[in-house]
Amino acid sequence: MQPTQTTTLAPRVLARDLAAVPHGEPATLAGWIHRRRVLASVTFLVLRDRSGLAQVVVKDRETVEQLAGLPEETVVEVTGIVSTNESAPGGAELVEPTVTPLTEPAAAPPTELWRPTFGAGLPTHLDHAAVTLRHPRHRAAWQIASASMRGFRSALGALEFTEIATPKLVGTATESGANVFTVDYFGRTAYLAQSPQLYKQMLVGVFERVFEVGPVFRAEPHDTVRHLAQYTSLDAELGFVRDHRDVLAVLRLAIAGMVEAIGEYAADAAALLGVELPRVPDEFPVIHFSDALAKVGADPDEPDLSPAHERALSEWAKTAYDSDFLAVEGYPMGKRPFYTAPEGYGPNGPRGSSGGARGAEPPVGSNSFDLLFRGLELTTGGQRLHRPSDYAAAMARTGTDPAVLAGYLDAFAHGMPPHGGFAIGLERWVGRLTGAENIREVTLFPRDLHRLEP
Amino acid sequence: MQPTQTTTLAPRVLARDLAAVPHGEPATLAGWIHRRRVLASVTFLVLRDRSGLAQVVVKDRETVEQLAGLPEETVVEVTGIVSTNESAPGGAELVEPTVTPLTEPAAAPPTELWRPTFGAGLPTHLDHAAVTLRHPRHRAAWQIASASMRGFRSALGALEFTEIATPKLVGTATESGANVFTVDYFGRTAYLAQSPQLYKQMLVGVFERVFEVGPVFRAEPHDTVRHLAQYTSLDAELGFVRDHRDVLAVLRLAIAGMVEAIGEYAADAAALLGVELPRVPDEFPVIHFSDALAKVGADPDEPDLSPAHERALSEWAKTAYDSDFLAVEGYPMGKRPFYTAPEGYGPNGPRGSSGGARGAEPPVGSNSFDLLFRGLELTTGGQRLHRPSDYAAAMARTGTDPAVLAGYLDAFAHGMPPHGGFAIGLERWVGRLTGAENIREVTLFPRDLHRLEP
Repeated sequence: MQPTQTTTLAPRVLARDLAAVPHGEPATLAGWIHRRRVLASVTFLVLRDRSGLAQVVVKDRETVEQLAGLPEETVVEVTGIVSTNESAPGGAELVEPTVTPLTEPAAAPPTELWRPTFGAGLPTHLDHAAVTLRHPRHRAAWQIASASMRGFRSALGALEFTEIATPKLVGTATESGANVFTVDYFGRTAYLAQSPQLYKQMLVGVFERVFEVGPVFRAEPHDTVRHLAQYTSLDAELGFVRDHRDVLAVLRLAIAGMVEAIGEYAADAAALLGVELPRVPDEFPVIHFSDALAKVGADPDEPDLSPAHERALSEWAKTAYDSDFLAVEGYPMGKRPFYTAPEGYGPNGPRGSSGGARGAEPPVGSNSFDLLFRGLELTTGGQRLHRPSDYAAAMARTGTDPAVLAGYLDAFAHGMPPHGGFAIGLERWVGRLTGAENIREVTLFPRDLHRLEP
Repeated sequence: MQPTQTTTLAPRVLARDLAAVPHGEPATLAGWIHRRRVLASVTFLVLRDRSGLAQVVVKDRETVEQLAGLPEETVVEVTGIVSTNESAPGGAELVEPTVTPLTEPAAAPPTELWRPTFGAGLPTHLDHAAVTLRHPRHRAAWQIASASMRGFRSALGALEFTEIATPKLVGTATESGANVFTVDYFGRTAYLAQSPQLYKQMLVGVFERVFEVGPVFRAEPHDTVRHLAQYTSLDAELGFVRDHRDVLAVLRLAIAGMVEAIGEYAADAAALLGVELPRVPDEFPVIHFSDALAKVGADPDEPDLSPAHERALSEWAKTAYDSDFLAVEGYPMGKRPFYTAPEGYGPNGPRGSSGGARGAEPPVGSNSFDLLFRGLELTTGGQRLHRPSDYAAAMARTGTDPAVLAGYLDAFAHGMPPHGGFAIGLERWVGRLTGAENIREVTLFPRDLHRLEP
């Protein structure tokens, strides 16, 4: 936790700072009534604010009666005397309180939020997210997400990446024709961007190194525990790389920044959820796709790794390298998007520079990778094609009309450096860290096939 | 400019660091051929990278001939000997170079990018943005935008705001029924969010202080120089405020952070564009709406300020307070959204708590403000209603069916603190700072009534 900041707001002590007030001095807390515990001779009021919980001891009969009319979640200001008390949470409590409601008495939440474990199922949580996100465990999961974004930006900012903001409304859905939402755009059809991929590449031509943290949209027609119709993508792209290994090195720095920021800004949240932060090694261990297939005993012609393969490979990396991360490189070109660079791709275009013939034996590998984290694919990244003639070949190979990508192909015709990048799914990262069974548990107001509310 | 960071990428000297290499030592630059100047006995090659420009002196005939085949914008690596030379830009140049192209020779850009002033009109720029954004003046404008986002987050992070990511696909368009894009959402109709307003309020109930930097969407049917179909909104919302003045104080800190970050991370860009950074006063001067009308000689019944009024008021603030900023508070309730708190609004609901009767004489003012910056409305903000009964009254007054906002109203029924917030339009901010005549000049790939490409 960082130190309290002063603002010009009303004087108020945060729950976590109560013990720093000298014993016997007055103090004002403000927050939500987290819990009332009525005993025979005393009522304990637990107050929740953004910093945590504080205990208020109520003995005065009038205040005890007042509290009977102020249910849990009512927002109040409480002024009293600080009493140092080792048995109180945080080492201090407020006594002789005056309680002032700041709004009307709260309605009862769908489940008691003060219980350490969230007491209702996922549908109840999602239907009432505005209230149930207040449960400390839900709140903590997003605090980890927030800190992760901060760490991602901080790491890339230190490497002179420029933050970009790219169009979410696009005229063509050619990056991947499937699973795209259509928008009525002033009477024309537009699409919601599935990723900032094409724009971040174009902007490497302007800024060399760019990143974007923003929403991406997938009209995912399947109801799974790990897909959403909108999620937050942490995207980066950089120029003047030798190959995908340079991209992987930057990905490692970004993830190290994310882990560090969780430790700095969300340590309490991580502790509450029992999150064990991963050690980020000096280099991610790397295995080639064909070796990975062999390692898990899969058919050498398999074009992709199954979830079971990913889990097995992660276990192997944990044993062999004591690493929670494993990069798999050299995926077959056939399963990768058209802008993917083949293995051995360079400025002067050696092996595979035509984009890789499909069905050749053995299949042409790519300069791309997946990063596995604790058994799950967290990130896809790699080197991209950068020569205009390679794009022309890729268009021809995939039967894409270059006219629909004219604005994008412009960048390559006018000079682009060797480059590559990656994208991390924020919610997937947090889900894996916290061990959530369903990605919706760690998403604010998730969107899916069935859910557009709240 | 911050110091160069080391990564594991290929050894390369940035243009701005060339003079730090000892005279006579070898160095490798990499970047775009910005300009070739062919004189009788020497060819000057100006190389552009993310840090700026560097000069390369070519005397060797073979290299001169090679350069004839490498047009401007071709990406090259240049290895040579550093020569300290006071007449060279930056104080050093590279001599005896070996030039290695990193891609194919570039096609000619739509206008020469090396000329100090961008030589084509706005339509040409926007049609070829992937290339023309490379012009140093265009690039500089976005570097100011990027630094501004960084400063915004840094200021709010220091105040313990939690970053949020809210749905851009929403089920109801009730915040403002007009100018909304519709999306085919798995066979249902969804809308693109016009702002994160309702979500950031709900999340004040979870985190107290939240911010989001993200895209917002307006189906703006008018072709103006200051509206876009998508722009970047810097949104903040915080709880436990006394009134809108506390919100304004945080807005001031956010803007101070933005200005400071431009000075720290985009000073060269600001200098190139002749941007005079505003002084951020210790407090923004504030004028009441009714006094503002009187000051500009407008009819006291006017419900809003015209652009001409805003300019006149800004001029007055500059003269009276030496301030580029002026907050106008107390706008009539009638022109503000339903969640706006009326003047005098407090936890215990004094004057105007019903939301303000329309047509009353004089009209009920609101606890909201506009912030004018150099003649233009930059930000709208203010205090919101927080009591459930006030929302019930506002729903009734505006004829809104509470059922369509059920998920939002949930937050208030279950206890919300007094709160407020604001939103800054990023592109509008940068446009005003740089003196752009059209907001499209400072937007990456703008979207409007006519434009969905590139």
